Amino acid sequence: MGLLLKNIIFQEKERDIFIRKGKIEKIGKNLNVRAKEKIDCQGRKAVLPGLINCHTHSAMVLFRGYADDLPLKKWLEEKIWPLEARLSREDVYWGTKLACLEMLKSGTTAFNEMYFFPEAQAEAVREMGLRAKIGLPLIDFLPEYRPKSIEKLYQRLKRVLDGNRLSIALAPHSIYTVSRENLIWAKDFAKKHNLPLHLHLSETEQEVEECLLKYKKRPVEFLEEIGFLGNNCLLAHSIWLSDKEIALLSKRKPHLIYNPCSNLKLGSGIFSYLKLKREGLNICLGTDSAVSNNSLDLIREIKVGSLLQKGAERSQKVLPAKEALEILTKNGARALRTGAGEIREGGPADLIFVDLEKIYFQPPINFLSSFVYSASGECVSDVICGGKIIMRERRIEGEKEIIRKSKERARGLLRNVHLNNKA
Amino acid sequence: MGLLLKNIIFQEKERDIFIRKGKIEKIGKNLNVRAKEKIDCQGRKAVLPGLINCHTHSAMVLFRGYADDLPLKKWLEEKIWPLEARLSREDVYWGTKLACLEMLKSGTTAFNEMYFFPEAQAEAVREMGLRAKIGLPLIDFLPEYRPKSIEKLYQRLKRVLDGNRLSIALAPHSIYTVSRENLIWAKDFAKKHNLPLHLHLSETEQEVEECLLKYKKRPVEFLEEIGFLGNNCLLAHSIWLSDKEIALLSKRKPHLIYNPCSNLKLGSGIFSYLKLKREGLNICLGTDSAVSNNSLDLIREIKVGSLLQKGAERSQKVLPAKEALEILTKNGARALRTGAGEIREGGPADLIFVDLEKIYFQPPINFLSSFVYSASGECVSDVICGGKIIMRERRIEGEKEIIRKSKERARGLLRNVHLNNKA
Repeated sequence: MGLLLKNIIFQEKERDIFIRKGKIEKIGKNLNVRAKEKIDCQGRKAVLPGLINCHTHSAMVLFRGYADDLPLKKWLEEKIWPLEARLSREDVYWGTKLACLEMLKSGTTAFNEMYFFPEAQAEAVREMGLRAKIGLPLIDFLPEYRPKSIEKLYQRLKRVLDGNRLSIALAPHSIYTVSRENLIWAKDFAKKHNLPLHLHLSETEQEVEECLLKYKKRPVEFLEEIGFLGNNCLLAHSIWLSDKEIALLSKRKPHLIYNPCSNLKLGSGIFSYLKLKREGLNICLGTDSAVSNNSLDLIREIKVGSLLQKGAERSQKVLPAKEALEILTKNGARALRTGAGEIREGGPADLIFVDLEKIYFQPPINFLSSFVYSASGECVSDVICGGKIIMRERRIEGEKEIIRKSKERARGLLRNVHLNNKA
Repeated sequence: MGLLLKNIIFQEKERDIFIRKGKIEKIGKNLNVRAKEKIDCQGRKAVLPGLINCHTHSAMVLFRGYADDLPLKKWLEEKIWPLEARLSREDVYWGTKLACLEMLKSGTTAFNEMYFFPEAQAEAVREMGLRAKIGLPLIDFLPEYRPKSIEKLYQRLKRVLDGNRLSIALAPHSIYTVSRENLIWAKDFAKKHNLPLHLHLSETEQEVEECLLKYKKRPVEFLEEIGFLGNNCLLAHSIWLSDKEIALLSKRKPHLIYNPCSNLKLGSGIFSYLKLKREGLNICLGTDSAVSNNSLDLIREIKVGSLLQKGAERSQKVLPAKEALEILTKNGARALRTGAGEIREGGPADLIFVDLEKIYFQPPINFLSSFVYSASGECVSDVICGGKIIMRERRIEGEKEIIRKSKERARGLLRNVHLNNKA
């Protein structure tokens, strides 16, 4: 029984790692254990914790490259929402699978999901073998995603989840698409069922202005007033924050999700990394959807994230490589409570292998620096999640069918829609 | 004779391309020609012009990951220059080859080089098969790179260059490392021999301040005063420009080289893309060296470049995918005068094939968008330069030896130097 990884580079040394029952049982030199399966990496691969994408809308990968270069509001209202109105359960199932493929091929083993048809997502993710927080989306203008429907959805979904790799979050879309009343319902429901709350927050200046008009308060102040904020909150974007709001966040300790590519591409603004980090807040990373990025590759995402902060602060010391890796692993694991995020005996075996022979690791002076600043997700050769090998030498079971099926779904969706771009 | 590419996607249609004597002879559907060699892409690959890196210091790839996260001046003076003082011809030869490998593996077919030992560079690049402008570096504090030595170097280098794939530029390092007198010598020498002038310009605010102190003028005003500026100038960085300076540039029409990753990583500032483009200036792209980036991948570079401009201007319309491709190809070709940069009958056959089966091209809605916003350099499967296949299915002749040798050189160089990072 068990899986033995031989001669893999762990923290710059060649080690063996023995995996059993989904966990890392032993790390050492020349381990003498009997294993059902062995992989000898011959010192050519490094092992890292699986990467964690804390904010995405997986199935939107079906619209990748459709409607670039528009402002957030226009882009949502005129392009994305009309398409989404046509979306079926089947679309989301295949779209989620396609996104999982892309995430696996760039080293992601867990993600925080917010999209429609959560049951279809759960089915897709379970088959792909990653971990995910499946968000139950709360959004006022869609009856099927209002509190009453969500309660039923929650009960149905709870029954089918294995509770191990998959778990549930409550995902009120934002303060501008969910009413005060429903946000209060959400925080109570989350408390009752011990769920995380996944929310878009202060992504644009406009959102803040509208909140000031409507509630006479800034978004974080409003959320504080209704008792929404807490350590179970996963707040995506969180760009437009006043000092007073930052002080409130610092008190309530939500997890903040930085989405550098999406924030740049949509011209939303720049996340105040240094200020928020100094407040002791847990900062993790998201790619957002493949429509506003347009990639789900966390390794490329953190390079942009690190460089952007150095550039914005005009200081090269900000967000160095070591911190970048923590954001990708430990911090994400803390936010999603996966228990993974580092490689330690007794911890879950969520691991990725990195191919050290890639050209951008040459010469091999500083692995961590090259992983963050030089590599792309394609350096990931193998992925293990919960002790199970999901990707082996970049091959994933069923990938051809997933690509074929998701192409069909995308074609179907875009067929009757006015396309600016060639389909 | 000749090379026939069958069923390759050219501008969204399946076409054949016939290449002979280094040039694209014919583009059409089902070409009926006799060719010595055939490659059938079966509609699975797209063809694009080879990408052009307009500012790099290739052999610095030997220091990749050594000394990240320091301010430009400190980084140069305390880390890079002491290392470079130990650099040998052999180091530069292997370092340049390693950089060429990385460039080829991400689709670069031509680059604008500025570094030491230009003869070693020329030898390395000729063997690798790319195009390059080999810069003769002019720098006051190094006797071997002062005008007298440069004149001799020029004569020697001119004799060995084939004049086709390789050509010479004069590369005064910057206005703060080259005296007024030597800059004047440089522009006269460039005029006499019809050479481009490759210069770092206004990369940091400090450079502008020092120039104001020394010359009572801002850098561009100073260069205008000494008659340096012209259409043969390739100005790297060009970040800190006043409106008056921009007006001068607009009159003299130098080529401006945007280096988004390096500028962010060193906290130098943000290039004013929109303003400079509106002045009709030719804007091209550079990776700078692998020490301040730390990658030579132009596809990843232009994503950062495009997103950064959208973010800085808070407008999603800035630098769309179509413009991004032009920057990578046409604009670079104009700056380096390679004659390539687009795919047309009679033009040089500098081509790259893009593997459309990569996960980030799925679903295939908008190729150009995915090339710019979703892909990494690893989507490039094949590279042809001057009609010759240099990379075939990601394999390049001699790559193992290059990696082995450049590892040895890096080890030798870093051996006696205090390392902050693990070697």
